[in-house]
Amino acid sequence: MREEILRILRERKEYVSGQELCETLGVSRTAVWKCIRRLEEEGYEIEAVPRSGYRLLGSPDSIAEEEVASRLTTERMGHPIRYFAQIDSTNRLAGREAAEGAPEGLLVIADEQTAGRGRRGRTWSTPAGSAVAFSLVLRPALAPESISMVTLVMGLAVAQAVEELYGLAAGIKWPNDVVINGRKLSGTLTEMSAEAEAVHYLVAGTGINANMTAFPEELRQTATSLTLELGRSVNRAELIAAVMRHFEADYDRFTAQGDLASLLPEYNRLLVSRGKEVRVLEPGHEYSGTSHGIDERGRLLVEKADGEVTRVYAGEVSVRGIYGYV
Amino acid sequence: MREEILRILRERKEYVSGQELCETLGVSRTAVWKCIRRLEEEGYEIEAVPRSGYRLLGSPDSIAEEEVASRLTTERMGHPIRYFAQIDSTNRLAGREAAEGAPEGLLVIADEQTAGRGRRGRTWSTPAGSAVAFSLVLRPALAPESISMVTLVMGLAVAQAVEELYGLAAGIKWPNDVVINGRKLSGTLTEMSAEAEAVHYLVAGTGINANMTAFPEELRQTATSLTLELGRSVNRAELIAAVMRHFEADYDRFTAQGDLASLLPEYNRLLVSRGKEVRVLEPGHEYSGTSHGIDERGRLLVEKADGEVTRVYAGEVSVRGIYGYV
Repeated sequence: MREEILRILRERKEYVSGQELCETLGVSRTAVWKCIRRLEEEGYEIEAVPRSGYRLLGSPDSIAEEEVASRLTTERMGHPIRYFAQIDSTNRLAGREAAEGAPEGLLVIADEQTAGRGRRGRTWSTPAGSAVAFSLVLRPALAPESISMVTLVMGLAVAQAVEELYGLAAGIKWPNDVVINGRKLSGTLTEMSAEAEAVHYLVAGTGINANMTAFPEELRQTATSLTLELGRSVNRAELIAAVMRHFEADYDRFTAQGDLASLLPEYNRLLVSRGKEVRVLEPGHEYSGTSHGIDERGRLLVEKADGEVTRVYAGEVSVRGIYGYV
Repeated sequence: MREEILRILRERKEYVSGQELCETLGVSRTAVWKCIRRLEEEGYEIEAVPRSGYRLLGSPDSIAEEEVASRLTTERMGHPIRYFAQIDSTNRLAGREAAEGAPEGLLVIADEQTAGRGRRGRTWSTPAGSAVAFSLVLRPALAPESISMVTLVMGLAVAQAVEELYGLAAGIKWPNDVVINGRKLSGTLTEMSAEAEAVHYLVAGTGINANMTAFPEELRQTATSLTLELGRSVNRAELIAAVMRHFEADYDRFTAQGDLASLLPEYNRLLVSRGKEVRVLEPGHEYSGTSHGIDERGRLLVEKADGEVTRVYAGEVSVRGIYGYV
């Protein structure tokens, strides 16, 4: 009921009478009153005017279940939600839940991760209250070698949401980082449980630097946040809901076809390296070339000086002008 | 100490004096005596002759930790062992242990599985006391697309152990079933936790039909056991130890090279379909051809009637004469 009342007040933006809330939700006046009081205790500013009704003036910057759920417009992604004020790693919990049978769409959200992980065993910092960290359980009918494409779809969804909500020039650094002005805003680590021929489940875990106002010395040249780019703080629940909306649409197009063909124009439009010089570090050798965007399997097409075009599916790719690479 | 005493008695085959046991193990006569008594209570037949010492006459058909550990000659595989009289699934427990950091070589053994799993979501029956079920934790430095090769290595090790211990004509049905006289003796399900570019850990789970004297009606035409083939029961701990020995040797050759090139002659020698007609069922289409063995990536080479050779890396392959396919 809390989620429904919040949704109605947020969508209406004007006064909603207690009577209307009762009738819509099929509950008593007392139940509505109690619910409004509890929301106020949690930090919601709700104006109550006799004969006009209730109006939502402000929400706490919370990413707790109701805050996100009441903003979701998705059918599967984000249903259900599990929220934690503090957790070791959202990917780890989502993985455990998936192993126990959690459905596709389960979204684990945390305000703080004490052992957040990035790709290739790196750590990922999620300071309490200012970051966004979530992990989504997925059950695509794909072979294991297809999962890197899911990582690209999540990177795309984050870039789309940031561009749409804030009008920022968010770009994608292949495979899935989201960057603004050459600095990292977001990363995604996709993990799977699988046998040789079939994926059992995937967990796509994403961290977004939302409201950080500063970074530690070692990240200062390479990381940015929405607050630093906008000069104001953002509503993190709104951001998560927007990412879910874009991801669901993109993921459905991806799984319908089994590859990224239908998402290619959009992904390549946002790819920061397109047409730029990149440096590819593969185990054992290193080379430079010009990036021509991805193919339908998510591989980066890199044209070497001699005209040969390679398809990069793993390895590190540095882009001139990004993360301090000059 | 129990494991050491068992190992000494088993290797010596003759009387070993209590004094010698004390000195070898650095413990008191009383400690040795207590240990011998406990072994007797567990079903070991140990003859004690004054002035000659102890002699092992018989072991219970147990696959508990000491029974297997005292037979192991491996360096990593089977160290440590976790034994369960009954468990839902050895793969599931091994996966949980691996997620918590268990080392490569952890071997989970169960006398009975209540929810044993096979490939592609099939069930696998492990009746108490007559079957062998184990799962091995592995941490190879491989990309996810390489894991099907590990499954082939385990199938090879089981076939080698069965051939060596019992002189039976064990063959491999690609990718990893072990068959005798056209019926299934063993299967392996390899599962992994991975991200796009790196495997975190693998669990290779194997079931072997050891001492079953009969199968349910629906399996009668397609399954067999060592007891049915030999007309006698086998020591299951000895079998597990032999599989570990072959697996460790084969796996080391595999990981040193990153592919199956050095194991090809041995695998293809044991492959039952080699030179035979096979029927390939891939999602969407079906065709027949002649099997020419595997390549270095573990793919089955199938020559169609028109001479085209395809490399099968997934899908079901039926072999004429195996599992009732005529």
